[in-house]
Amino acid sequence: MFTGFLIAVAIAITITLGFAAYNYYAVKRLAPGTREMQEIAGAIQEGARAFINHEYKIIALAALAIAVVLFVVIDWYVGVTFLLGTFMSALAGYVGMKIATIANVRVSNQARESKSLGKTLKVAFRGGSVMGLCVAGFGLLGMLLVYVFFGKIGRQIEPESMTVVANWLGISYIPFTMSITGYSLGCSVVALFNRVGGGIYTKAADMGADLVGKTEAHIPEDDPRNPATIADNVGDNVGDVAGLGSDLLESYIGAIISCVVLACYTYFINIHSSNPISDELLSRLLLYPILFSAIGLIACVIGIGYVLFRPQSDKPHRELNIALWSSAFLIVVASCVLSWFYFRGLDVSAIDFHVGPLSPWLAALTGIAAGMLIGFFAEFYTSYDFKDTRRLAEASISGTALTITNGLALGMKSCFFPVVILACAVLAANALAGIYGVAMAAIGMLSFLAATVSVDTYGPIADNAGGISEMSKLDPVVRRITDKLDSVGNTTAAIGKGFAIGSAALASLSLLVSYMHAQIGIDEAVHEAVLNIISTQVLAGAFIGSALPFLFSSLLIDAVAVSAGKMVQEVRRQFKEMPGILTGDEKPDYTTCIKISAAGALREMKLPVVIAVAVPVVAGFVFGAQFVGGLLIGSTLSAVMLALFTANSGGAWDNAKKYIEFGGVEGTGKGSEAHDAAVIGDTVGDPLKDTVGPSLDILIKIMATVSLIAVSIYSRFNLMNLFN
Amino acid sequence: MFTGFLIAVAIAITITLGFAAYNYYAVKRLAPGTREMQEIAGAIQEGARAFINHEYKIIALAALAIAVVLFVVIDWYVGVTFLLGTFMSALAGYVGMKIATIANVRVSNQARESKSLGKTLKVAFRGGSVMGLCVAGFGLLGMLLVYVFFGKIGRQIEPESMTVVANWLGISYIPFTMSITGYSLGCSVVALFNRVGGGIYTKAADMGADLVGKTEAHIPEDDPRNPATIADNVGDNVGDVAGLGSDLLESYIGAIISCVVLACYTYFINIHSSNPISDELLSRLLLYPILFSAIGLIACVIGIGYVLFRPQSDKPHRELNIALWSSAFLIVVASCVLSWFYFRGLDVSAIDFHVGPLSPWLAALTGIAAGMLIGFFAEFYTSYDFKDTRRLAEASISGTALTITNGLALGMKSCFFPVVILACAVLAANALAGIYGVAMAAIGMLSFLAATVSVDTYGPIADNAGGISEMSKLDPVVRRITDKLDSVGNTTAAIGKGFAIGSAALASLSLLVSYMHAQIGIDEAVHEAVLNIISTQVLAGAFIGSALPFLFSSLLIDAVAVSAGKMVQEVRRQFKEMPGILTGDEKPDYTTCIKISAAGALREMKLPVVIAVAVPVVAGFVFGAQFVGGLLIGSTLSAVMLALFTANSGGAWDNAKKYIEFGGVEGTGKGSEAHDAAVIGDTVGDPLKDTVGPSLDILIKIMATVSLIAVSIYSRFNLMNLFN
Repeated sequence: MFTGFLIAVAIAITITLGFAAYNYYAVKRLAPGTREMQEIAGAIQEGARAFINHEYKIIALAALAIAVVLFVVIDWYVGVTFLLGTFMSALAGYVGMKIATIANVRVSNQARESKSLGKTLKVAFRGGSVMGLCVAGFGLLGMLLVYVFFGKIGRQIEPESMTVVANWLGISYIPFTMSITGYSLGCSVVALFNRVGGGIYTKAADMGADLVGKTEAHIPEDDPRNPATIADNVGDNVGDVAGLGSDLLESYIGAIISCVVLACYTYFINIHSSNPISDELLSRLLLYPILFSAIGLIACVIGIGYVLFRPQSDKPHRELNIALWSSAFLIVVASCVLSWFYFRGLDVSAIDFHVGPLSPWLAALTGIAAGMLIGFFAEFYTSYDFKDTRRLAEASISGTALTITNGLALGMKSCFFPVVILACAVLAANALAGIYGVAMAAIGMLSFLAATVSVDTYGPIADNAGGISEMSKLDPVVRRITDKLDSVGNTTAAIGKGFAIGSAALASLSLLVSYMHAQIGIDEAVHEAVLNIISTQVLAGAFIGSALPFLFSSLLIDAVAVSAGKMVQEVRRQFKEMPGILTGDEKPDYTTCIKISAAGALREMKLPVVIAVAVPVVAGFVFGAQFVGGLLIGSTLSAVMLALFTANSGGAWDNAKKYIEFGGVEGTGKGSEAHDAAVIGDTVGDPLKDTVGPSLDILIKIMATVSLIAVSIYSRFNLMNLFN
Repeated sequence: MFTGFLIAVAIAITITLGFAAYNYYAVKRLAPGTREMQEIAGAIQEGARAFINHEYKIIALAALAIAVVLFVVIDWYVGVTFLLGTFMSALAGYVGMKIATIANVRVSNQARESKSLGKTLKVAFRGGSVMGLCVAGFGLLGMLLVYVFFGKIGRQIEPESMTVVANWLGISYIPFTMSITGYSLGCSVVALFNRVGGGIYTKAADMGADLVGKTEAHIPEDDPRNPATIADNVGDNVGDVAGLGSDLLESYIGAIISCVVLACYTYFINIHSSNPISDELLSRLLLYPILFSAIGLIACVIGIGYVLFRPQSDKPHRELNIALWSSAFLIVVASCVLSWFYFRGLDVSAIDFHVGPLSPWLAALTGIAAGMLIGFFAEFYTSYDFKDTRRLAEASISGTALTITNGLALGMKSCFFPVVILACAVLAANALAGIYGVAMAAIGMLSFLAATVSVDTYGPIADNAGGISEMSKLDPVVRRITDKLDSVGNTTAAIGKGFAIGSAALASLSLLVSYMHAQIGIDEAVHEAVLNIISTQVLAGAFIGSALPFLFSSLLIDAVAVSAGKMVQEVRRQFKEMPGILTGDEKPDYTTCIKISAAGALREMKLPVVIAVAVPVVAGFVFGAQFVGGLLIGSTLSAVMLALFTANSGGAWDNAKKYIEFGGVEGTGKGSEAHDAAVIGDTVGDPLKDTVGPSLDILIKIMATVSLIAVSIYSRFNLMNLFN
């Protein structure tokens, strides 16, 4: 029977990846436009390819080093699953970047040839869907491989995979949880590199282009006279596409493994209790998350396919919503049926399913509802359809200082409701299905990932298409079409960020609980995981933990600012030394700008990654497992706040600027003093919302995953043990 | 013997307040300068007086309401000690404001008549010392009264004050801890009102004056043509003097009571254990914090007196440092002797004094050292003698956006080391003297409060004197003298902020531990206070708790921005309707501006205060005591980060601007584009560093104090109990 379930998952993955391949070639077949368009698109593609290749070399070295360590101190298969994780995540990022750089020019050309919003939308969304389907498909494929080769769950819970073992160093752990945690860590490491590297790349180019182009030379965005403009477009692909893809793949996997690991530890903790988890129930608990996710895949294939094959429409916002909500609706219905038959008749009280077989399904619904609400608040605070961003736009009449001040206040205020929703979701999921339910809430939130990533990727593709149209001096109507598509993408991106932050918080919390179980569950016979925050050791960890996201953010902002500063100097130099550029008689040197962005990103991405990976390990070896528990909770709390604050401040500044450009504030508009103030707000917000915010999501998950692996080592070997 | 100790404390207080009175009249006796100077000073004095009177009426109403609630739901004497606390805190604020508005014009006149930096310094410091001595003296006086009338500790631990009682509602508590917590809450409520109200007042006036004056009309600071300039100077007195005074009095008392309450609860928790705390030891533990503080008073009287009576010097920085460090040195020596004889021969193992009778003294030293280090880092990140602020100043060459971005990154980075120091201090103090030691670390940090507040208050007095000199068009040499004094004050103010944040964190943590004890210690026989952060209820509380400081900050920033916006409109109106103002032919209407600031502050200060007081109480009644525990830890962690971030970003922007003005960055200076960018940075930083940062310190302490009182009520009556 379990083999049957695994085959079903394999079929779902095959369908998903097959559909992705179909869409890939369907986009590639389209005409790529004029020679000029192809030239520009070629330059973007080449820039992105060069960066990703270089970045992947660095990642490969880092990954190999980590794999060797895992191989030596734990066991060979953890090194292998880790490398599998890096491979899957890297692959998803690569494919996404590839299709985005193929689709961008074809979107532009579709708009040029058909002048139809509906037709152009289909191309852009088809391009985005390749990424969405690949992220979820590859992520789950790797997970399935780990199950089949290292879990042996297809047949039964076999001793070598589901018992506690001790390795040559005397470190004890459960092989299966180690395998999947290793897989998750692989995904996390690539995600962190891609997010941080891509984030620095894209915002250095963007800020550099804006600081000189818009503010000094007063030329519009994507103007071919701006030497940084190609770098800016490359950045969209390596940051907003490849970075986002690996990021969400990592969230997806993180949620799944936190659920699985929790189930394992709960099983071991209760093994000698009066109410143990039966072997049958355990197997079902371990398989449930990937079955749920497989249902998600098929639902998204249907939702995306429906939008792609139905007659075209001129309402892009509605189309995207149909894709999202039809997928979500199908998941809710199908997973309800699955859960009912799957858990019916089993005694589920041992795992705290308080309302019967549908408990985990209800917990997942809590997650979906919380994700939607958090997404709504992201839109509420950052869209100019609502009062806060409008008021921010109006504040720019009073000058730059009040624009910045009000934007900061808006971002701070915007943390409150999402956090209350998150807290309620945690309480509700726990009341329904225990801590397993909290992990299921994260899985629910991410179950229609293929659809959300498709929508998220469609945005930067449309953005790039706009850039290519502008640079190739196409008919302005083409730009208007791509702009319309892009602006719809911005709104959905805000919602996507809400999901990313919410699910990251839930996944890290589940991982943290797993961590506490890992620490107590194996060596002793304690029945409840306790992390006493008022013990001074945990408290000290929590203090330092809550400072880490601030440190991490400042490193990222500095990295962007330094690279952007170099870009500014280069652009100024070109304008000065080649006066023909601004008159349009001379072609700017795009390549140097691309190199500056790439070099900056590759140089600056290393330290933040090292901090994220090394701090919990070093802290564990010095201060022990309790301290690291504090570190994790402190960093999670503070990272969630900072992520919401930066994402919403940045988003609101961006849209306040757009609101002014679009004429929303009387007596202002492009070129007014209020607009200048709003542009500065937008520039300040850029690194906050696109580099800092998304990287923080990964930071907390990677810290939790690293600790979950390392705790088995440092709970045995640490300085505190030495002294006691 | 204990009566003897109490008499000694009374003598120390008498000497301190006597010296304050002497200094008060010594300053008042001085000549107040020309008729014009007196007129301006009169206007400032009148504005400050009117605001404080109005504010105190509101505070009185709020305090009476709270006192009635305490009277009804707990007992009459808690209402009385609460009112005593409000009275002492209000008195300290009032006297400080009074002397500051008397001293400012006399400082200006001293500079005018003597043209001597040294002589002027003495007057300013004498003025500041009145405030410093009063804050510590009044704070400890009230505490002593509570001990004498409600503690009965002078004779012995009598049953009615040192047992657990139950009142008519069935709520059980320890009368003595309730009395002193009530006293502390009184201090907190006034401090919060004064800080928030004063903070909004001063920054609304300051930003309003700067936004139109400096940025639009290009007239210098304190120019008499600026209609908001008197309001700005009034703001210094109600915010930086009265607000600061009540704030630090509250910290001082908060640290003392957290130590005392902890001792009480530890006593009760261990009363039936194998190693109970003896009655003798308990009495000594309860008295130790106020003896330590009394030593601090005398040391500060000597330190301050030495600087006032020694021959004048032209090195103001050195003079202030002598006052600070001689006081600190005396405290260290004297308290060492006290501790040795005080605890010698007692069995101190029951209270976790791990290194004998000197344990609490060593813990206090840890606090002093941590405070100094945190102060050093505050200076390191915000002074232009160090690289970070210099780099920030250089960034302003690249424009406003990078100035803001870099300032934000600097502030975020600056959280790390202070927090690490704080964590180490907690670990060290706990290792030396248990959780009592952590509270003693806070007391150590604040023990030379009289000296630090004197130094802190001297700054705004010098600042005001500069304003008066400018407005009365005195010889520029006068302004140069006051500017010099003011700039020294800025550095010491940064250090003072470090102490304020550090001690607030330690005091809140001690209060939080007391809270956990209060919750478990009375009803059950649990021996260790546990707050399990990974239980979902605590976690949910922690999430919401960490969002509260962000919400609170955004309300404060909004309040300042709204009031500043009104001020901008008024100043613009006056410039437009009375064109004679800018040419100097017409006198601006100062009074309207003063009224705008006052009305804004009084209107906007209420909501933040209500949130701070009501949230923990309401949360307790709905979700119970564990949830509130999470709320407290979450808000403490997040408030400490935000307080450091805002204080240091703001301070660095301020000093980066000064560095440019002073010619530190080549090719810039007043009027350059870089200077404009730096001025915008400074304006953004103003509400962050002077309104948000200091208010956050109080927020966490008032929440902890309120909870500590309310927990006895809601641990009996709450919705969760109803359901279970």
